Amino acid sequence: MLLNNIKDVKTIIQQWKKEGLTIGLVPTMGALHIGHASLIKKAKETCDRVVVSVFVNPIQFGPNEDFQKYPRTLKKDEELCNELGADIVFAPSAIEMYGENTGLCNNELTFVCPAYNIVDALCGKSRPGHFDGVATVVLKLFNISKADYAFFGQKDAQQLFIIKKMVKDLNLDIKIISCPIVREHDGLAVSSRNIYLSESEREQALTISKALFHIKELYSKGIKDTSVLFDSAISILDKNIELDYLEFRDFSTFEKAQMAQENTLVAIAAKAGKTRLIDNIIL
Amino acid sequence: MLLNNIKDVKTIIQQWKKEGLTIGLVPTMGALHIGHASLIKKAKETCDRVVVSVFVNPIQFGPNEDFQKYPRTLKKDEELCNELGADIVFAPSAIEMYGENTGLCNNELTFVCPAYNIVDALCGKSRPGHFDGVATVVLKLFNISKADYAFFGQKDAQQLFIIKKMVKDLNLDIKIISCPIVREHDGLAVSSRNIYLSESEREQALTISKALFHIKELYSKGIKDTSVLFDSAISILDKNIELDYLEFRDFSTFEKAQMAQENTLVAIAAKAGKTRLIDNIIL
Repeated sequence: MLLNNIKDVKTIIQQWKKEGLTIGLVPTMGALHIGHASLIKKAKETCDRVVVSVFVNPIQFGPNEDFQKYPRTLKKDEELCNELGADIVFAPSAIEMYGENTGLCNNELTFVCPAYNIVDALCGKSRPGHFDGVATVVLKLFNISKADYAFFGQKDAQQLFIIKKMVKDLNLDIKIISCPIVREHDGLAVSSRNIYLSESEREQALTISKALFHIKELYSKGIKDTSVLFDSAISILDKNIELDYLEFRDFSTFEKAQMAQENTLVAIAAKAGKTRLIDNIIL
Repeated sequence: MLLNNIKDVKTIIQQWKKEGLTIGLVPTMGALHIGHASLIKKAKETCDRVVVSVFVNPIQFGPNEDFQKYPRTLKKDEELCNELGADIVFAPSAIEMYGENTGLCNNELTFVCPAYNIVDALCGKSRPGHFDGVATVVLKLFNISKADYAFFGQKDAQQLFIIKKMVKDLNLDIKIISCPIVREHDGLAVSSRNIYLSESEREQALTISKALFHIKELYSKGIKDTSVLFDSAISILDKNIELDYLEFRDFSTFEKAQMAQENTLVAIAAKAGKTRLIDNIIL
């Protein structure tokens, strides 16, 4: 069932809650792909009712980012959600979510601002305000859906960490379920932004996951010095790829890791042409 | 019942929720006085169960403010709460609320940051970060108590406005009940900080409410120009009072009002000696 307004969602959820049903939320920006599908499937396995939100959230985009051209495929998204057995597809307008107060640098809205020491790293550094927008919309969706579980892909590892931290810091009663990265047959991490890639850019982009797999292989052979792992990954990357970061972080504290070990996050962001891509592995 | 830890509160609340009981929250920093008592009484009238939180919230105090010397009278507070029929007195430690991450300029916590256009005014201007700390602790208390209603005094008018805005912006299902300012027999607004006042400072402080009453009287006689009202209020204030602000704001939008009208907030903050006091009236 496709719903556009908050009140309708709340009414239905209230009834489900009365019946003692558990609710799973899959927050998305639409342009659904097999990565999202894996989240929806997991939600179906875990919960009695599943809400998929489809909302290209204006307050998480910077002024020079791809908000306008971000792919919007609601009709197809709705069909996929129905096929997978989602109970509600919630696709609000920006005005429904924020009133007239949209836009990243918005001084008329209450924001959720994730811990600065986590935001001031990786994607947060190149996308100022991005995670404030993410945390704010996610908290709103939690409150609207009253979900018991929410499902996030490991691909946005920093986002996942920030949301888990928000749940802890703000005493929310929701369980965050992290789902593995889904990849194309050749290893490229599935992303809604992959459609931007030309054929040659896609070739270049492929070296991103190759670099990560290379690190994993070296690590499994006992190489743990992150500067060695870094250098050897860089040598794999296509020369046309513009690296934003390649970092090693402890995934329980988000602190930089000098030596790789179990639960070390290896995260990369890079541009192929004009398209910014992210990927990661957890050792 | 006095409880110190979040888990115990959540367990009891969960049971009450199952029984379909409504829950009222009265968030306080303790040092309870007749103003707080009026909130607790209102909560008792409105809700099946009442939770009073007593927590001197470190993250809303600036480095040069009175966090250390803020009055703490938990034993008396608990007695008053019991007398008034509160069901839970929740008095957590700072560590229970924030882990080790206490302090105003804290970069390891998820914060709620109220709309900047409201924060950048009145008390927010002289107390940078204060309302981030307030909004954050209040949202935590909302989430811990799962209250249906929360009760706030009109005395902290800007705080009240910010909390109402947070509830709207973050799609919270809680009703905010505003309760009138309680005054001493001579008109001084009741405050936990009044105990700091020497006898002569108290005399000076009295001119704060007198100035507000004077504005109300002039307004009732048809004087609506806020600059005229301002000047005539200033002439009432004791010369030893150090004025921080005296402002006229529309209490539905928080915009500055040039002409006073119904629902105009007249808010004042001023120091008597070293003690910062606030007061207001709504026309």
